[in-house]
Amino acid sequence: MSQAQKLVQYFLSHRNVTVELINKIEEKHYDYKPTPTSMSAKDLATHILFSFYKFANTAKHGDPALFTEKIEETETNLQKLAQTYTEKTKQLLESLTNEDFERVLDLTNVFGAKIPTAQFLQMAMDHEIHHKGQLFVYVREMGHTDLPLFVKRG
Amino acid sequence: MSQAQKLVQYFLSHRNVTVELINKIEEKHYDYKPTPTSMSAKDLATHILFSFYKFANTAKHGDPALFTEKIEETETNLQKLAQTYTEKTKQLLESLTNEDFERVLDLTNVFGAKIPTAQFLQMAMDHEIHHKGQLFVYVREMGHTDLPLFVKRG
Repeated sequence: MSQAQKLVQYFLSHRNVTVELINKIEEKHYDYKPTPTSMSAKDLATHILFSFYKFANTAKHGDPALFTEKIEETETNLQKLAQTYTEKTKQLLESLTNEDFERVLDLTNVFGAKIPTAQFLQMAMDHEIHHKGQLFVYVREMGHTDLPLFVKRG
Repeated sequence: MSQAQKLVQYFLSHRNVTVELINKIEEKHYDYKPTPTSMSAKDLATHILFSFYKFANTAKHGDPALFTEKIEETETNLQKLAQTYTEKTKQLLESLTNEDFERVLDLTNVFGAKIPTAQFLQMAMDHEIHHKGQLFVYVREMGHTDLPLFVKRG
């Protein structure tokens, strides 16, 4: 299996769970926040989806500027966003070449360091897993008790 | 940097945040649960600490049986547990040799598969990050609003 294929498998083993959780969020709960200073469910879900897309886009094109670019998106349905951005992200990850993985990205402006692409993509995974962990608590607080395991291996 | 040193650095970049969160949990909140079906704060914190220790112990000794062994522990103070188990886990990770990393662990009984040690240790990281994400929500719900970033790079 190529490095890209392994990464796609690893990505989906967590992303499919993220999508399963997002699919449980009804529109009436989009503005749900556990506390007044928390991100809303809508903001948390969107943040997860947009972030990994930006990590992948930055890695594919070797362009750190893409990481901080704002995503203009008119779709507001979380289920549709989850489907679209998972597909776009998967396609980017699938297209990564060995050369892409070996590039070092100058992310001094964002993280104060130059980061090898492989490590940058692990940070993308960690970011997804972290916020998905939070989403589990949110979704349980919305009344769902039948929740998946935190990772689904192929 | 050796593979073990890199792993210790990666482990601590997340574990130090876990410990910072655990240090915010006052005894009166040990039994706090966001919902009746959630793990209590005490159970969640203990699960994080014991789990990584068991991952590391299993990896170090190449013995899958260590993964499911129950930990007998009389200490109930979460701050003390965090300190002790972080130290024990760090020592195990530091001691990993290249040979240890190359071993394949037969975890058919637990995960239905044989898993290379390096991948098994990434699962340990993912597990920590997932539950730490949940802990962030818990601690915010206890009234703390000044929370660290989800990872602290050295």
